[in-house]
Amino acid sequence: MILSALLTSVGINLGICLLYFTLYSILRKQPGNIPIYAPRLVAEGKEQQRGEFNLESLLPTAAWVTRAWRLSEEELLSICGLDAVVFMRIFIFSVRVFAFAGVVGILILLPINYLGTQLSDDSSDLSSKSLDSFSISNVNDGSNWLWVHFCAAYVLTGVVCYLLYYEYRYISSKRIAYFYSSKPQPHEFTILVRSIPLPSGSSCSETVESFFTENHSSTYLSHSVVRRTSKLQTLISDAEKLNRKLAHLKLTNDTPQRFRRVGFLGLFGRKVDILDHHEKRLEALEDSVRLEQSSLAGKEVPAAFVSFKSLLGAATALHIQQGVNPTEWVTERAPEPRDVHWQFFSASFIKRWISMLVVFVACAALTILFLIPVAIVQGLANLDQLETWFPFLESILNLTVVSQVITGYLPSLILQQFLSFVPPIMIMLSSMQGYISFSQIEKSACIKVLWFTIWNIFFATVLSGTALYQVSVFLEPDKIPSVLAEAVPGQASFFIAYIVTSGWASLSSELFRLTPLLCNYFRRIFSGTAGDKFEVPSIPYHSEIPRILFFGLLGITYFFLAPLILPFLFVYYCMGYIIFRNQLLNVYAPKYQTGGKLWPIVHYTTIFSLVLMHIIAIGIFGLKEVPLAASLTIPLPILTLLFNEYCQNRFLPMFKAYPMEFLQMYVVCMLLMPHQSGLKECLVQCLNQGEDCVLALSLPLLFVDCHFLHYMCSEETIVLVARHSQHHD
Amino acid sequence: MILSALLTSVGINLGICLLYFTLYSILRKQPGNIPIYAPRLVAEGKEQQRGEFNLESLLPTAAWVTRAWRLSEEELLSICGLDAVVFMRIFIFSVRVFAFAGVVGILILLPINYLGTQLSDDSSDLSSKSLDSFSISNVNDGSNWLWVHFCAAYVLTGVVCYLLYYEYRYISSKRIAYFYSSKPQPHEFTILVRSIPLPSGSSCSETVESFFTENHSSTYLSHSVVRRTSKLQTLISDAEKLNRKLAHLKLTNDTPQRFRRVGFLGLFGRKVDILDHHEKRLEALEDSVRLEQSSLAGKEVPAAFVSFKSLLGAATALHIQQGVNPTEWVTERAPEPRDVHWQFFSASFIKRWISMLVVFVACAALTILFLIPVAIVQGLANLDQLETWFPFLESILNLTVVSQVITGYLPSLILQQFLSFVPPIMIMLSSMQGYISFSQIEKSACIKVLWFTIWNIFFATVLSGTALYQVSVFLEPDKIPSVLAEAVPGQASFFIAYIVTSGWASLSSELFRLTPLLCNYFRRIFSGTAGDKFEVPSIPYHSEIPRILFFGLLGITYFFLAPLILPFLFVYYCMGYIIFRNQLLNVYAPKYQTGGKLWPIVHYTTIFSLVLMHIIAIGIFGLKEVPLAASLTIPLPILTLLFNEYCQNRFLPMFKAYPMEFLQMYVVCMLLMPHQSGLKECLVQCLNQGEDCVLALSLPLLFVDCHFLHYMCSEETIVLVARHSQHHD
Repeated sequence: MILSALLTSVGINLGICLLYFTLYSILRKQPGNIPIYAPRLVAEGKEQQRGEFNLESLLPTAAWVTRAWRLSEEELLSICGLDAVVFMRIFIFSVRVFAFAGVVGILILLPINYLGTQLSDDSSDLSSKSLDSFSISNVNDGSNWLWVHFCAAYVLTGVVCYLLYYEYRYISSKRIAYFYSSKPQPHEFTILVRSIPLPSGSSCSETVESFFTENHSSTYLSHSVVRRTSKLQTLISDAEKLNRKLAHLKLTNDTPQRFRRVGFLGLFGRKVDILDHHEKRLEALEDSVRLEQSSLAGKEVPAAFVSFKSLLGAATALHIQQGVNPTEWVTERAPEPRDVHWQFFSASFIKRWISMLVVFVACAALTILFLIPVAIVQGLANLDQLETWFPFLESILNLTVVSQVITGYLPSLILQQFLSFVPPIMIMLSSMQGYISFSQIEKSACIKVLWFTIWNIFFATVLSGTALYQVSVFLEPDKIPSVLAEAVPGQASFFIAYIVTSGWASLSSELFRLTPLLCNYFRRIFSGTAGDKFEVPSIPYHSEIPRILFFGLLGITYFFLAPLILPFLFVYYCMGYIIFRNQLLNVYAPKYQTGGKLWPIVHYTTIFSLVLMHIIAIGIFGLKEVPLAASLTIPLPILTLLFNEYCQNRFLPMFKAYPMEFLQMYVVCMLLMPHQSGLKECLVQCLNQGEDCVLALSLPLLFVDCHFLHYMCSEETIVLVARHSQHHD
Repeated sequence: MILSALLTSVGINLGICLLYFTLYSILRKQPGNIPIYAPRLVAEGKEQQRGEFNLESLLPTAAWVTRAWRLSEEELLSICGLDAVVFMRIFIFSVRVFAFAGVVGILILLPINYLGTQLSDDSSDLSSKSLDSFSISNVNDGSNWLWVHFCAAYVLTGVVCYLLYYEYRYISSKRIAYFYSSKPQPHEFTILVRSIPLPSGSSCSETVESFFTENHSSTYLSHSVVRRTSKLQTLISDAEKLNRKLAHLKLTNDTPQRFRRVGFLGLFGRKVDILDHHEKRLEALEDSVRLEQSSLAGKEVPAAFVSFKSLLGAATALHIQQGVNPTEWVTERAPEPRDVHWQFFSASFIKRWISMLVVFVACAALTILFLIPVAIVQGLANLDQLETWFPFLESILNLTVVSQVITGYLPSLILQQFLSFVPPIMIMLSSMQGYISFSQIEKSACIKVLWFTIWNIFFATVLSGTALYQVSVFLEPDKIPSVLAEAVPGQASFFIAYIVTSGWASLSSELFRLTPLLCNYFRRIFSGTAGDKFEVPSIPYHSEIPRILFFGLLGITYFFLAPLILPFLFVYYCMGYIIFRNQLLNVYAPKYQTGGKLWPIVHYTTIFSLVLMHIIAIGIFGLKEVPLAASLTIPLPILTLLFNEYCQNRFLPMFKAYPMEFLQMYVVCMLLMPHQSGLKECLVQCLNQGEDCVLALSLPLLFVDCHFLHYMCSEETIVLVARHSQHHD
């Protein structure tokens, strides 16, 4: 690719970005678009759906940028929780890394590369110069200038490791502070027990009761057996939906809309009063819910939620093997009620194990099948190949503009479209793996999407650019450095285009929210009701984080190969920092809190990027006939991996379990009281007695909003009153 | 190697075995040898050192074989503990595997191999036939007979996996039964805490006390800070030695020996009454012990043993992260007092981490350096090479007997001598790694020796037989099967000789105990005192288990390549079964109990052997031009690894931690009472009160016999009285 093709691509994308930014700053001020651009504020009641229209709102302004910029980390933490803060730390970390790398790369490495004569690109015109003349390929073989690259690799590794350590420590401390400041939640006192061995003749509930009263006599509080109630769940959610609709109808009291035909699309059938019609349907639904509830007892699953009187009790049951047979009485942390997501819940150990294997095979198959679109994209990037495939296109392809668009812009656009299918598929696969909470599924999907991206974008592009022989390369580990060193620098231009197309454009469309905007628009046109299905979205970590980290990988690996990539990345991260702060402020609301559990993924990926960079460096120095530099680079990946090992020992346990000190902070007083009465009085009494009452939740409501499973209300309601344990007074 | 060379080697070793057996059955009946051949019985007082001599005892008998054979597993368990039972299960498992493999190999595979014509070995004389004509190399390329080998590989894998599962389940159940039947030990209620963060101005003891009373208020019992007292320890052990000597002298009351010169070797200096002399020295020693003890307070190490009132309390402290910083308050199970071994004890996390890295590097270096003797041994096996190295030896080497001895016997003998240095080195490396108990060190050394043996004997022999290019082979994973398939069958004869030399001979010398016999003999001649340093040995698992498992690996990998190896192995395991039962009965006494923790090593090694066999099979079928069989073998290693994964989930946790039910079995009543008085009365009182008193040990004595570290006696003695917890009544 020549410089002008790159500039075409940058130009197109810069145009799109500016267009989106302008449109955003205009559209977000239109009253009808508020639920699209600030759903979070609407839901919190901070922003009303104003009806007026004024001309001023048609002028594009940059007020949102300053608002997003001014937001402090404490505010972000209080608004969006720790996960969002950790997400923003990825940008801060990346901006720091690429600010440093950019200065070194552009001021030192780029001139050295450009002054080399290896490629002997004679065109004196800068714009038609191949991008390769800015890469390390242009440095003469055996030149002493390569020692500058060698030093740069060492310095960058040091800086990145220091920043990684700093961030890991910072986020760990944030996480601990988060533990101590957050109120104790009922799910923290609860574990999920699966694979309960049922002796013949006794029910699951009895078995659980007797096991835990025997083995956890001092801390056991109560339990509730899991029941398979997909039908009931559907009925309840239908009822809830109808209820919301009714409330909305009653609120608006929109008489012309009140009478509608009940047939196909509201066009045929007799006209009825919808309010009346809906109320009747709701009553019928409630009847069937009651009917279904009474027939529930038989649908027990050998799994149960078990609650304990103290955090320590729950942790003990979690960390210590319960049954003599380790595949029975398998314990697991109970997820937050709003986080439960278990379409593929299975109580048996063997079934979960098999489904994990199946998912593994499915992932591998998907990865292999995806090579097909990648190969096609690569065909587009190599115009000559396209001409041999479709000879009739020759005349069109010879036009400069067409060829520049095709080689510079189209391949990454197509790749991006294909890639957009991957995150939902991975979410599906992860949920099939048997996780019971959406946070676990999302984390697992995030890792899957990340490796998929690295394999199918980085390696497939790098290696199929020369031939589709990836797998065979990895079967000869000693040849990996030289193969990568030969193939990687050549793809620098493609990846610069990819960053611009996929990165910049995705950021601006993230801001502009094109799909929700269009959906909202069409819904308003066709159904006439706007706020009917209003829901605040949550940030899709599993598709955003892999993309951000993949760009980081590109930046680190191409740092000394083709430093031209660094300014584009720096711009990407700066833009991302502002845009995502804005979105977190206005659009997304956290669905659940994991307490920053996603950070280790960022850490590992960065370590992987560094080691990949080192391997390529070893290969490059070998190819460039500086064998001493190649052998002196070998300690670098070893030191990096040792650093990673140390970090894993030092910080990772804090992301897996609570420390003892925290577990001792709260104990639960149990109060039994009659069903639904006196809850408030009871709490007031507790508070008067001087308890540090921080938690008052009736347990039977704990897992009420789970999908496909439902918890039956018992006769009595248990109030959990947590208090600080004595020694903290 | 030809058949007659093999027979020479077998003959020599069979001769040695028979000689040793005969000598053993005569010598063990001689009164003076009883401490050598039955030290365990002597220590238990079952066998007296009889003074008489009768002629009958000079006749060799086989009574010891029947005695060893008749011993039941329950008897073995009660005499030697679970570890010995698990050790014997290795032989039972191996005998079963190789009985089956031997029948299949000799009756089905061997005739097929022999009837092939690939190698066209024309010598009609059976004894000069090359051993290769009994191996798979002799089967014609592309022959359909190879499908029999294919089926045999599948059937053997199935049988071995079934037996592995059966044994794992059996040993797990034994382990659980062992938990429930054994009395609770003080060390089970205790953990070792390292890396204690010391706030400035407060002592370690205060920090530990405040931390555990705060975080484990209901279960914390007491603690004792670790002190670095190597000088005190030396003094105490000197005093103990003197005390023993005195007791011995007083007992024998041997007047002529009572007066001796005190100078060099008892030859010069003035004559003194040794009893008097020793008593004076003991008094002086006791004075210095007291002096040293009073100056101990300053030598605290930031580590402590912490005891809890219940097993559950100890398990909670063990499994739950204690400090907010995971590298502080690191907990670990306390070892049995007699098992403590901590020359290289270090309380700091970083130091231990670095020493682990150093040991890893040292292991790798040792493995590489060991290739030198292996290469020399291989030179001996290839006579031609030896002749080119040392041309003057040509005339001697051409003698048939010499060449047969050199190729058949000498190489494995030399290799064995070199190998005998490895276990002690590995023990040293493992103890440097920072383990605090000998059982952990031995287990770690066992694994190290095992991999060392597999790498340096199997791979180095197989691959350096053609060239010393092992490492490069493993850098090209796709070529491993074909390289192994080419190299492995050729070394069958060497490994048969190795089994006979190293296996058979080591077993018979194990029975004969040549080294202790000679030591004892020389000691009696030179010093005149026999029973002075009498100590019952414990079985050296770290050198025995790797050898036994390595033979298993040879048997499984050569099963279908060269079935001629199988009868030799079968004989080895049968002999081993009888001999080790005899030794466990008479010689070895267990130093400590791990509850069968060594079994997982056996399991993993067998799985590795199976997978190695499959990889070689894939290569062989490829080489032999039956590509369909090669591809149909590929599922076999995958299925085996899945089976291993399942076993790991199903059984391994039982070898790592106690289940909840067991932890609930005992709680401790704490009684404080004045120093050294009323212990017995107190216990009697407890028993009268109806407590199920099973444990009465004064805690300060708990870790008294540790090496290099010593626990100061406190003013009060704590009596631990364990009782079954209520719910088991």
